[in-house]
Amino acid sequence: VGIWCLKRPELRRTKCALYSASGAYLSDRSYHERRENSNENFSKRRVVGVVGVGASFLLGIYGYRYLKAFSESVSIFVLDDSDDRRQVSSTEELDEEVASYQGIPGGRIDGLPTYKMADVAKHSSAEKRLWVTYKEGVYDITDFVDSHPGGDAILMAVGSALEPFWNLYAVHKTPQVTKLLEQYRIGNLDPAEAKENAEGHDPYHADPSRDPELVPSNKKPFNAEPLPERLIENYITPTEYFYVRNHLPVPVVDLSNYAIEIEGPGIKSTSLTLEELKKMPKHTITATVMCAGNRRSEMSQVKEVKGLYWGPSAIGNATWSGVKLSELLEKIGFDESTNEALHVQFEGLDLTPESNPYGGSIPIEKAVDPKGDVILAYEMNGKPLTRDHGYPVRVIAPGIVGARCVKWLNRIVLSKEESPAFWQRRDYKGFSPNVTAETAKWDEAAAIEELPVISAICMPSKHDHVHVNDDSTVTVRGYAWSGGGRPIIRVDVTSDGGDRWVEAELVEKSDARPGRHWSWTLWEVKVPVTASQNQVELWAKAVDSSYNVQPESFKHIWNIRGVLNNAYHRVPINLVR
Amino acid sequence: VGIWCLKRPELRRTKCALYSASGAYLSDRSYHERRENSNENFSKRRVVGVVGVGASFLLGIYGYRYLKAFSESVSIFVLDDSDDRRQVSSTEELDEEVASYQGIPGGRIDGLPTYKMADVAKHSSAEKRLWVTYKEGVYDITDFVDSHPGGDAILMAVGSALEPFWNLYAVHKTPQVTKLLEQYRIGNLDPAEAKENAEGHDPYHADPSRDPELVPSNKKPFNAEPLPERLIENYITPTEYFYVRNHLPVPVVDLSNYAIEIEGPGIKSTSLTLEELKKMPKHTITATVMCAGNRRSEMSQVKEVKGLYWGPSAIGNATWSGVKLSELLEKIGFDESTNEALHVQFEGLDLTPESNPYGGSIPIEKAVDPKGDVILAYEMNGKPLTRDHGYPVRVIAPGIVGARCVKWLNRIVLSKEESPAFWQRRDYKGFSPNVTAETAKWDEAAAIEELPVISAICMPSKHDHVHVNDDSTVTVRGYAWSGGGRPIIRVDVTSDGGDRWVEAELVEKSDARPGRHWSWTLWEVKVPVTASQNQVELWAKAVDSSYNVQPESFKHIWNIRGVLNNAYHRVPINLVR
Repeated sequence: VGIWCLKRPELRRTKCALYSASGAYLSDRSYHERRENSNENFSKRRVVGVVGVGASFLLGIYGYRYLKAFSESVSIFVLDDSDDRRQVSSTEELDEEVASYQGIPGGRIDGLPTYKMADVAKHSSAEKRLWVTYKEGVYDITDFVDSHPGGDAILMAVGSALEPFWNLYAVHKTPQVTKLLEQYRIGNLDPAEAKENAEGHDPYHADPSRDPELVPSNKKPFNAEPLPERLIENYITPTEYFYVRNHLPVPVVDLSNYAIEIEGPGIKSTSLTLEELKKMPKHTITATVMCAGNRRSEMSQVKEVKGLYWGPSAIGNATWSGVKLSELLEKIGFDESTNEALHVQFEGLDLTPESNPYGGSIPIEKAVDPKGDVILAYEMNGKPLTRDHGYPVRVIAPGIVGARCVKWLNRIVLSKEESPAFWQRRDYKGFSPNVTAETAKWDEAAAIEELPVISAICMPSKHDHVHVNDDSTVTVRGYAWSGGGRPIIRVDVTSDGGDRWVEAELVEKSDARPGRHWSWTLWEVKVPVTASQNQVELWAKAVDSSYNVQPESFKHIWNIRGVLNNAYHRVPINLVR
Repeated sequence: VGIWCLKRPELRRTKCALYSASGAYLSDRSYHERRENSNENFSKRRVVGVVGVGASFLLGIYGYRYLKAFSESVSIFVLDDSDDRRQVSSTEELDEEVASYQGIPGGRIDGLPTYKMADVAKHSSAEKRLWVTYKEGVYDITDFVDSHPGGDAILMAVGSALEPFWNLYAVHKTPQVTKLLEQYRIGNLDPAEAKENAEGHDPYHADPSRDPELVPSNKKPFNAEPLPERLIENYITPTEYFYVRNHLPVPVVDLSNYAIEIEGPGIKSTSLTLEELKKMPKHTITATVMCAGNRRSEMSQVKEVKGLYWGPSAIGNATWSGVKLSELLEKIGFDESTNEALHVQFEGLDLTPESNPYGGSIPIEKAVDPKGDVILAYEMNGKPLTRDHGYPVRVIAPGIVGARCVKWLNRIVLSKEESPAFWQRRDYKGFSPNVTAETAKWDEAAAIEELPVISAICMPSKHDHVHVNDDSTVTVRGYAWSGGGRPIIRVDVTSDGGDRWVEAELVEKSDARPGRHWSWTLWEVKVPVTASQNQVELWAKAVDSSYNVQPESFKHIWNIRGVLNNAYHRVPINLVR
């Protein structure tokens, strides 16, 4: 018995999350249908033995009716546009879920007055009431705005259509939200105008095309990771397989208008084009960049967390070439002995609907230390940055969380304060396990900068059927990394719950000195398995040069944002002799 | 039922280690008899309820005959001079242990030939056989030297008496060793000369006197820690309560002969007296120093480890004043851009019998970074260093393990290599849990430098009877710290195995920037307890600015040397309402 999720089949893409009857997490995979059809063995390996029914039947399911046939014996999750998961426990609920995609929210309701957009536009202040439209629905949301989870941002939409905003923040496109919205329904919108709104601007229309090897955890904004086994194929992750974590649409950059603005106390305000940047000394570093949410899907097994459902591949190791921020700041007059700035803020060209840029900051010490190796990078793996990775220039702050490595860099501000951006102040922070969205003291929590030690098993994958070597071992491979330039000094792997840990061979690593060891370490080990066992659970844990070690389990590091998922990586496998 | 240890009562000092019948660790305390007599309440609090028999009776036990009376229902450990613990399981074995202190090893054996020291001296080469003496015994150890665990060091003693060496390395003074020695017995030593040897030089005779508040885990060399509740009384630990970790006798320093030698490639070889040092700019930092073995007694509950039986107080926070190593090196010509040195080695004036100095090294980056704050300290808490803390000058390498903060500093050597000293190369390294003394690859393991994040509950202590506050909470206090200048950002405490973690208030901490945050953090929290419970186990874990967190348990971080004991601190207590 398994639980599984069906991504809307009309997208010709299936996503499965498989659980035991008790709710324990078993597996999670997204596949393009193309791949499933072209590589049957590969697909079977993932599916057979997990759900325990014929793979060919499972793989043939592309409609919810088939799901219904299953629904008496399995639980069903439904994924919507925002990739939020919701469980339905009956076929009736499943019908309702499917129906919610078939036109009811925002659909025409007979007997209500019909308005034009010009009428709606008049209602954009509290005294005249606040109206919005969605599809063919007109709504008076005056009494709702104070309880909007996203705060005042909702006011951007008053007097107009919701579609442009919801297209950006797809989190709204859930039956919960549309049902809530319908409570404020006051009329119908002129059908022609509704059509116009629906066909209107997709803020993601200019996003680049992506390699199908990247498995999206979200499409708008685009977020995707490679399959774990891809990661260990190369010490330097090829750009096309490097995970992508976008928060907003990819900006379209016209180089003829592009310049990075730099300002702050004690320095000469400066504007630098890409050409000017390229005239400065070029530095190349090899550095791992990781998303704070990497491996979140494991934490969410303990208790559901908000955020993208990342596997273990929201990480990559690349070479980055560009200008050293420390040299640039020195050149424009920065003097550490007198300057009072405590943080360096970065702003991207990617904008929210309210025209706020994506942003983040790093401590000034990191920015101005030549050994901190912070790079304004215009090349990745020897080629100009791709659009998804920040073309034309992004920040690489090695050893620090990817969220501060701001892409499409537009502005640098030295300040006594951290970046005021949402992602620095109200996101990417860790909390104690019992802190809730209601009790979180965002201002008191520390913004994530350096990341803790982590590792993952990339091969085998969960529930793989693994061949036992002649010496009664199984071969296990993966990566390990730690923030702050701290090298990995050891990786331990066990197949018996830690009664016998075996030290992995660190097969690929850099020879950088402690404190500047920005690259990950790839490892390999043959782990003994007992002759009588048909199934074992592999565990991996890494130790860094400060002898910090990964925590054992997710229970005690669980946090509302699902970040810092560095517990032991645990991979149950089946043994084949 | 408990297990307990009796320190040799003639020393007027009792040491108890208390265990449950199943061998689980309950408590460990050393007390001066003086204290027990003068502060009955204090003593009772520690003892009553653990062993479960009348405290007054227990406290009256000062001879092994009383222990024998207990030995039918409890297991008994015996502590010898080296503080090695050995379990005896019967009254007969206990008799044997006690007898082993009553003159058998090295005692006269009738019928053997009698020699003079002059005879023994002739046997100091392999072709003439290798003889040594111990008390009235003469031994031919030629066939033993190759299997000596301490290697060639044994050759220092051939042709002479063992006493001077065993006085330094008290680890030899166990029945196991003396029994082994007796296997090589060939004769008796002239009684007058044996007396002379016995009364001979005690290498520790010049050690300073210590505050009785410091509880020794070993006396020769002197190693001692305060009671945990002392630590949280002051943010700056008073010098008299600051833990002492000596590896050898405290050297006697004559300032008129004292100078620090500095040498290495690319710098001007320099010799600096204390007066010359004091003429350089004086810097004061506040820094926590911790022993790598702090909290080892907890790790040894999982499986016995070699090393001093430290509680949670082998740590302290003090102010240190002296010369910045980075400034000193710059002054004598160090240029990082050209210098090839990778390590800075330190040598103390404390010598092994083979005249090797205690030593350790730190990475060159730490030493030359002005923000690394490495100090050649001649003051501690505003006063000249005490002899136990390194008078006249010691290294303070903040954020780095205490073992590299070499005391009685004699020599500084810049080198491509780490310190060749035993303590850098064959000690103070971490290993995977299944590595044994036989399989340890010392050359491949990383020397401990920066320490991982740690915390401890200082109040209440294990098995204390704790008053429940009116709001159904208990008050818990302790310290937390992390190496590498990383501040503590959070401490979580639970009384229910982590179902409900409560965030502690960080009541005393420094406002230093990340990367230079050398001081510990003192914390306090009121932890809810359930009304129905009479006993709870408190757990504490800290998180540092890199979001590294303590590991849950000792099982998976166990290592042969018993270092890096930073698992959750777990303190079972009794609740009083």
